[in-house]
Amino acid sequence: MTRAAETASFKFNHTMIRVKEPQVSLKFYTEVLGMDLLSKKDFSDFSLYFLGYNHEGRDLSDEEKERSRFSREGVLELTHNHGTESDENFKGYASGNTDPGKGFGHIAITVDNVEKACERFEQLGVQFKKRPSDGKMRHIAFILDPDGYWIEIVPGILDL
Amino acid sequence: MTRAAETASFKFNHTMIRVKEPQVSLKFYTEVLGMDLLSKKDFSDFSLYFLGYNHEGRDLSDEEKERSRFSREGVLELTHNHGTESDENFKGYASGNTDPGKGFGHIAITVDNVEKACERFEQLGVQFKKRPSDGKMRHIAFILDPDGYWIEIVPGILDL
Repeated sequence: MTRAAETASFKFNHTMIRVKEPQVSLKFYTEVLGMDLLSKKDFSDFSLYFLGYNHEGRDLSDEEKERSRFSREGVLELTHNHGTESDENFKGYASGNTDPGKGFGHIAITVDNVEKACERFEQLGVQFKKRPSDGKMRHIAFILDPDGYWIEIVPGILDL
Repeated sequence: MTRAAETASFKFNHTMIRVKEPQVSLKFYTEVLGMDLLSKKDFSDFSLYFLGYNHEGRDLSDEEKERSRFSREGVLELTHNHGTESDENFKGYASGNTDPGKGFGHIAITVDNVEKACERFEQLGVQFKKRPSDGKMRHIAFILDPDGYWIEIVPGILDL
């Protein structure tokens, strides 16, 4: 079918997940996965962190990062509801992969070499849901982020 | 901080959500939201649909779409577990925004004009979680996809 002209400007901008402890999550998404922090917004009872990969081949200014927040694809928004990080009664967030709460599945990161990327994740102490050597699908892996969300690790070219 | 060299090839490739009835979801994501179907994969008990916006300014061949599935950003993967569409006992999937199951929040689509985009959604019978005129944040809206997942509608440039 032909794309409706009214949607010509549309982009799949971001995916939002809630996180318990932003400092832990930011360390994971920037240091382990290599994303840039594009923007941080503080409100009275929550804070938003927007992250994304820099594909420009140069450092971006703060203003460029801020502008890119809603104008590009591949942005991850982390929502921190203040207090969850120190609330002993907070049960944690559901990954979306078990009942009840099943629906959301995962996000995925493309890498050039799944084996090498996973060796590094292993060295960094990242939790695995599925190593490349587990199960039938040897060309992919699933790691867990600090809140237990699944992250699929996929090669850029995949013949299924 | 400096991005780890080992992550230089990484991209935020896709986000996966489960859907009850793929024909209804595909109609929504292609006709209402204007995404392209990049790839469909059938397995014995589930099928996967990969969608994304075409930003190339020309039609892509089936092979180009297939190749782009894991090599670009901004891809949405819909998982259909066969049978949910006709199972009277199937309760539907959680949006991730209410307990239990809270964690995942939403995906977001950038548009050039939020008001106009929402007028069209209204005409197409799309359900709204928040119209631009509702609440405090007049510059954004939230619509619901056929399974009840929240989709934020944001302008490409947003000054907060």
